[in-house]
Amino acid sequence: MPDLLRSALDPKSIAIIGASENPNKIGGRPIFYMKRDGYKGAIYPINPNRSEIQGLKSYASLDSLPVVPELAIIIVSGDAAVAAVDECAARGVKAAIVIASGFGETGEAGCKVQQAMVERARAAGMRVVGPNSQGLANFGTGAVASFSTIFIEVPPQDGPVAVVSQSGGMSAVIYGLLRGRGIGVRHVHATGNEADVTVSDLAWAVAHDPQVKLLLLYLESVADPKLLAQAAAYARARDLPIVAVKAGRSASGQKAASSHTGSLANEDRVVGAFFRRHGIWRARDAHAQAQAAEMYLKGWRPQARRLVVISNSGASCVMAADASEEFGLPLAELAADTRRALGEKLPAFASTANPIDITAALLSNSHLFGEVLPAVARDPAVDLVFINIPVAGAGYDVQAFASDTAKFAAATGKPVAVAAWQEPVAAPFRAAGVPVYANETEALGALSQLASHTELLRKKFVTWPRGAAPEVPAGMGTFLNEAESLALLERHGLPVVAHRLCSSAAEVRAAFQALGAPVAIKACSADVPHKSEHGLVALNVNSADAAAEVFAVQWKKLADLGAARDGVIVAAMRKGRREFMIGARVDPIFGPVVIVGDGGKYVEVLKDFDVLVPPFDADDVRQLLRGLRIAPLLDGVRGDPPLDIDAMAEAAIAVGRLIHAAEGRIASIDLNPVTVGAVGEGAVVVDAMVERAHAPTLA
Amino acid sequence: MPDLLRSALDPKSIAIIGASENPNKIGGRPIFYMKRDGYKGAIYPINPNRSEIQGLKSYASLDSLPVVPELAIIIVSGDAAVAAVDECAARGVKAAIVIASGFGETGEAGCKVQQAMVERARAAGMRVVGPNSQGLANFGTGAVASFSTIFIEVPPQDGPVAVVSQSGGMSAVIYGLLRGRGIGVRHVHATGNEADVTVSDLAWAVAHDPQVKLLLLYLESVADPKLLAQAAAYARARDLPIVAVKAGRSASGQKAASSHTGSLANEDRVVGAFFRRHGIWRARDAHAQAQAAEMYLKGWRPQARRLVVISNSGASCVMAADASEEFGLPLAELAADTRRALGEKLPAFASTANPIDITAALLSNSHLFGEVLPAVARDPAVDLVFINIPVAGAGYDVQAFASDTAKFAAATGKPVAVAAWQEPVAAPFRAAGVPVYANETEALGALSQLASHTELLRKKFVTWPRGAAPEVPAGMGTFLNEAESLALLERHGLPVVAHRLCSSAAEVRAAFQALGAPVAIKACSADVPHKSEHGLVALNVNSADAAAEVFAVQWKKLADLGAARDGVIVAAMRKGRREFMIGARVDPIFGPVVIVGDGGKYVEVLKDFDVLVPPFDADDVRQLLRGLRIAPLLDGVRGDPPLDIDAMAEAAIAVGRLIHAAEGRIASIDLNPVTVGAVGEGAVVVDAMVERAHAPTLA
Repeated sequence: MPDLLRSALDPKSIAIIGASENPNKIGGRPIFYMKRDGYKGAIYPINPNRSEIQGLKSYASLDSLPVVPELAIIIVSGDAAVAAVDECAARGVKAAIVIASGFGETGEAGCKVQQAMVERARAAGMRVVGPNSQGLANFGTGAVASFSTIFIEVPPQDGPVAVVSQSGGMSAVIYGLLRGRGIGVRHVHATGNEADVTVSDLAWAVAHDPQVKLLLLYLESVADPKLLAQAAAYARARDLPIVAVKAGRSASGQKAASSHTGSLANEDRVVGAFFRRHGIWRARDAHAQAQAAEMYLKGWRPQARRLVVISNSGASCVMAADASEEFGLPLAELAADTRRALGEKLPAFASTANPIDITAALLSNSHLFGEVLPAVARDPAVDLVFINIPVAGAGYDVQAFASDTAKFAAATGKPVAVAAWQEPVAAPFRAAGVPVYANETEALGALSQLASHTELLRKKFVTWPRGAAPEVPAGMGTFLNEAESLALLERHGLPVVAHRLCSSAAEVRAAFQALGAPVAIKACSADVPHKSEHGLVALNVNSADAAAEVFAVQWKKLADLGAARDGVIVAAMRKGRREFMIGARVDPIFGPVVIVGDGGKYVEVLKDFDVLVPPFDADDVRQLLRGLRIAPLLDGVRGDPPLDIDAMAEAAIAVGRLIHAAEGRIASIDLNPVTVGAVGEGAVVVDAMVERAHAPTLA
Repeated sequence: MPDLLRSALDPKSIAIIGASENPNKIGGRPIFYMKRDGYKGAIYPINPNRSEIQGLKSYASLDSLPVVPELAIIIVSGDAAVAAVDECAARGVKAAIVIASGFGETGEAGCKVQQAMVERARAAGMRVVGPNSQGLANFGTGAVASFSTIFIEVPPQDGPVAVVSQSGGMSAVIYGLLRGRGIGVRHVHATGNEADVTVSDLAWAVAHDPQVKLLLLYLESVADPKLLAQAAAYARARDLPIVAVKAGRSASGQKAASSHTGSLANEDRVVGAFFRRHGIWRARDAHAQAQAAEMYLKGWRPQARRLVVISNSGASCVMAADASEEFGLPLAELAADTRRALGEKLPAFASTANPIDITAALLSNSHLFGEVLPAVARDPAVDLVFINIPVAGAGYDVQAFASDTAKFAAATGKPVAVAAWQEPVAAPFRAAGVPVYANETEALGALSQLASHTELLRKKFVTWPRGAAPEVPAGMGTFLNEAESLALLERHGLPVVAHRLCSSAAEVRAAFQALGAPVAIKACSADVPHKSEHGLVALNVNSADAAAEVFAVQWKKLADLGAARDGVIVAAMRKGRREFMIGARVDPIFGPVVIVGDGGKYVEVLKDFDVLVPPFDADDVRQLLRGLRIAPLLDGVRGDPPLDIDAMAEAAIAVGRLIHAAEGRIASIDLNPVTVGAVGEGAVVVDAMVERAHAPTLA
C-alpha cells in the first residue's frame, strides 16, 4: 500500500477527538467498533470531561497522549474541528478524518475554510479525509474509524471486496447489500467533501491490498481522473475489476450533488467515456454493483455473450428471450447434437430450442436439470447460462436443481445466473454458491455486465507516442480562420475539402476553373466563426461569373461587418453519402476528449453523438459509431452502399492525436460536416473551426 | 358476472376427471385446494381405480355422477382429454378446463386437434379453458380449479386483486409477489392455449366482480382485442385500473411465445398503442405489477407528477434527482413558506431545496420526519412524495418515521413511496401501510406509473362518428395511382400538394405555367408504386421546355416498362420546414392503426415513429410527436421557427378517419413526406400511396 495513505487505512494508533461513552453517538461508534472488531493498535479517546470511555482511559487533550497518534478522528464540529486539524498537523499526526459537516457543501465560504484548513495540514505533512465524511473502515485490521450505523445493523466479515465512496450513506448501502448476499467486505471508506483525500486516492491505495478482488466506487464527481486512471491500470494488470456508480448523471442530480458534497459537475458522457477508456464498469446503482459482485468474485471471465435460457415455465422463456434481446445477449444456436440429447431427456411437447422450456414435467422428474445441463455444458456455442425458476415448491426437488447447477458451473467455468423470487427456491441455490436474482432483468443484467466488462478489460489498451506539438498559427483571436483551420488539420493527416483561399475576383475565377463546377464560396475571417448566420456562405455556384459576383458581395459584407478580410475560400462541392461530425475539446477535469456523431445543424439538439477519451483506436471509433442512433445506416440500407467508417475512424484518431499533442494550446476543434463516402471513397472535412486556448488548460 | 363464464369462475359443482389421492399430483391438487379453501359446492373426483379420493367418494366415470357437474377439470391427457371434452359437452357440462399440454403449442397438427375439439364443445354450448392451462382459482368462493404449486407455497387470502394470465407460471409469480407484499388476491386464472376462453373473456368476467379493485393481466398475444377493449371500458367506468404485461416484445420473445402457448405474434408498437388507447397500463413484468399494486389499492389518484424527495442521505438525494429526471417526474419547486418552515426545523447545513436532505441529523432528532412532512404537505406544488432512507438502525426511531409518514399520507391523500433496503427499516413502514421499495428506481417507477396511468385514465376518450364510407376508385391493381391517391385524400380533408395530372406535353407546359417554377414531375401509374426506383421522378424542373422534355422521357419509360400510362403528375415543389410521415394500415388483429413519425427515406430503418389506434384526437398526436427522437425540433431550434404540429395532428386524424371509415376497403395509406411548415403554414402531403384491400380484412 502506498505510504501516504497507509496511516489512514492501517494506523498503529488512533485518537478520537470528541470521544463519547455512548456507542450510538458519533464519538462513541468508532471506539465501539474497533473494540468489537479486534483492532490491535492503540485507541486514545479524547474528551476533557471523562477519565474513562467505553472501558478505555480517556485523555483531556491531544498533547496529554503518551504518543503522537498516527490517525486522528475529529468528531468535534465547526471551529473546534478546524482547531483540532491544525493541532493534529502541528503535532505530527499523519492523517486526520474530519467528520463534521458544514464546510464545502454549504457554499463558497465553507469551501474556503476547508481549503485553507487542508492546505495548512498538507504543508505540515498530514493528509485529511473529509470534512463531512463518515470515516474509513478496514475490517482486515479492525481499524474502523467510522461512525456508520450500518456496522451495527449488519455484522462485518472480512472479505474480498473494497468499497470507496464519496458518500457515507452510499458506502453503507453497498456494504449492506453485499453482506446481504453473504459476501465479505474488507474496506468501507467514505471521503465526504474530498478537500484532500479523494476516491481516487483511496482506490489507488486499496487496489494495492492483495486480498481485494473487487473494487466498488461511488462518486458524485471525479476529482482526480489521472490518479483514478493509474489505479485502474494497476487494478487491471492484477485482474481486479472496478465497478463505479457516478451519480449526478442529470442536471437535477448535479445540482443536488453540489449541495451534498460540494461536487463540481462532470459532463456525464465524458465520465462514461473516461470509465470505458480505463476499463471501469459504470453501474446504475449500488444494487447493480452488489448483484454483479458474485459473478466477478467467482473468477468468471466469459469468452463471449451467447446465452442459453433454461426454465420450467414457458412464459419465463418468453420473458427471458425479450430481456436477452434488450441486453444484447444473443440466444446461442444449440448444436444438433445438443438438441438431440435434449430431445431424449425432455417430454415431447417441450422445446429443445433455446430458450429450453423443460415445462412442468420438472414436477414429475426432478432429475431433468441434472440431465439437461451436461448436454448444454458440452455445447461450444454457450457462453452464459440463465436458469429461470419462476415457480417451484412442494413436489420439486430444488436441492437437486441447486446442486446440479453448482456442479455444472464448477465443471465448465461458465457463468450461471438463476432467477427465483421465492425464498425457499433461492436459498438452496445460494447455499450451493450459485448467484440468485429476483427476476430475469436482474439476472441478465448481471450476466451482461460481466460479459461486457470482461470484453472491455480484455481489450488491448492503446497508447499514442506523443508527436511533436502542432504549430498553431499565432494570433490574438479566439478562433483560427477557416483556411488556417483547414491547413492545420491537413498538416495533421486529415483529408480536407479541395479549396483555395482567394483575395480578388481574379483569384476566385482561377480557383473556379481549377476546382470545377459547382463550388462553395465562404468568406474567411477569424472574426466571423459562424459564417452562415451572416449570409457569408454560397453553395452550388455554377459559373466563374457567378463566383466573381459572390466574391464581391462577401468581400463588401466583411468590410461592412468590420471583420478582418482574411480572404474568401472557394471549395469543391463534396456531397459524400452522409454527413457526420467530429469535435474535440479540452475538458477542464478530464483533459482532451473527442466527440463523434451524426452531423448537420442539429447536433446539440438531437445529441446523436458520443465521446472518446484519448488515446483510442479505430475499434473504439467503430464501436462508438455502432452505438449511434443512425448506426443502421452505416452498413448501407435502401440501396445505399456501406459507408467508409474506416475513414471516419482515421479522421477521428487524427483529431484526437492533434488535440492530444497540442498540450492545451488548442481549446476545441469543430468539424461539421465531415462527409463520408461509400467504402473506399474516404471522408472529407468540409467545414472546420479550430479554437485557440489562450490560457493553459487544466489538462 | 356475465353468464357464460359464471360456470367456470363460480361453479356449483366440479368434477375432476383423472383425480388423484396425492395432493402433489396434478389430479390431486384441485381437490386438496378446494377442501382447504372452503369451497361450498360439490366436488366429484373421477377415477375408475379408486372408490375414495382425499376423503371424498370417487366415481368411475362422468355418467356415474349423481348430477351433471357445472365445471369439469380434465386432468387426463392426449386422446383421453379430447374424449373427456366431448363427453362433458355431450352431457351438458357448462365449462371444462383442459390441463393437458401437447396441443396448439406443438405446431399445426396439435392446433387442428384443439380447434376441432373446441368447435364441438362450443356447438354443444360448453366453454373450454385451455388446453395447456394451469386452471382457474377463485379464492372468493374457494373454487380452486387449478393445480398451481404456488397455492401450497404461499397461502391464499381473499382480497381486491384479480390476476388473469395466459401462463400458469406467470399467474403464480404475480400472485406470489402480491401476497409477499401482504396483498389479498381473489382471482388467479390461467388460460393456456386459449383455444376458446381468452384472457379477454376472463378480464371481462372478473371486471364485473365488485370486490375486484385492481386487475392484472399477463398476455403473450392479444387474441380478442375487441372484448378486451370492452372490458377496459367497463373497468374504467368503475375506476378499476388494469395493468398488463405483454411478453413477446422482441423477435426472440415472439418465437418463444409461439412454442409456449402457440401465440400469434402481435406487432409490439401496435400492442402498446392499443393499451394506451384503452387506458390499460403496460408494465414490464410481474415485479412492476406487484410494486405498483399498493398504490392503486390505496385509491391514490394524483393530480399531476411533481415530486418531492426527502432523505437522510445526500447521496440518495442525488440518486433520486437523477432517477426523477429519467422518469419524467419534475422536482417540485417548494414555496418560500415551505422552505422557511423547513429551515426552522433542519440543521443549518441541510438543504431546504427539493430534494430535501435532512442529513444524519436524523440520528440525533427522531422527530425530523414528523416536523418536515407537515410543511411539505401544505405545499400545493407537491403531487408525489418520495422518502429515501438508505441507512437507519440503532439510534434511529424508525417506528416514529413510519407512523409520521402514514399520518401524512392519510391526511393528504398524496401518494408516498419509501425506499429502504434494510428489512428492519422497511418493516415498520410496511406495518403502517406505507408502500416500501428496495431502491429509488423501484419507488419512483411505481409513483411514475401511478401518475401516468391516472392521467391516461382521466383523459376523455375520443369517439368518431362513423362517416360515410369513402369511395375508393375501382380497379384490379393493389395500389391506386398517385393521382387517385391524392384525390381520395383531398376529398377526405387532407391538404395535398398543388398538382395536375397531364397526358401530353402541352398539358405539362400549361401545368408548369399554372403552378410556377420549380415543379416536380412524376410518372403516374398504378403499376409502378415505387417511381423513384425507376427514375420516374424529376425534381426542381425550372422551365416549360425542360418540363416537356421530362414528360417525353417518362412517357416513353412507362411504355418501355409495359406499365399503364395513367398520366404524369406536375406538382408544385413544396419545401416546408421538416418532412414527416403519416401511414395507416389494417392490422390483422387490431384493425386500423395510424403511424406518425419522422419522414424521409429511412423511416423503417431509424424507426422514429409510433402508432395510434383510432379513434384519437389532436392531443394524442401531439403526445406521440413529443415522444419522437426528433421532438426537440418541434418547438424551433437554432433559429428555426416552431413547427405547425396542429396541422400534423389534423392530417393524422384525417388519415385515421379515412381508414377507419373505409371498413376494410383500404389496406394501407403511406404519406411520405408530409412537409410541415412553421406554425400557421400548415402541412402538405407531397407523396401518397393508397393500397386497396382486395379481401375483406379481419378488422
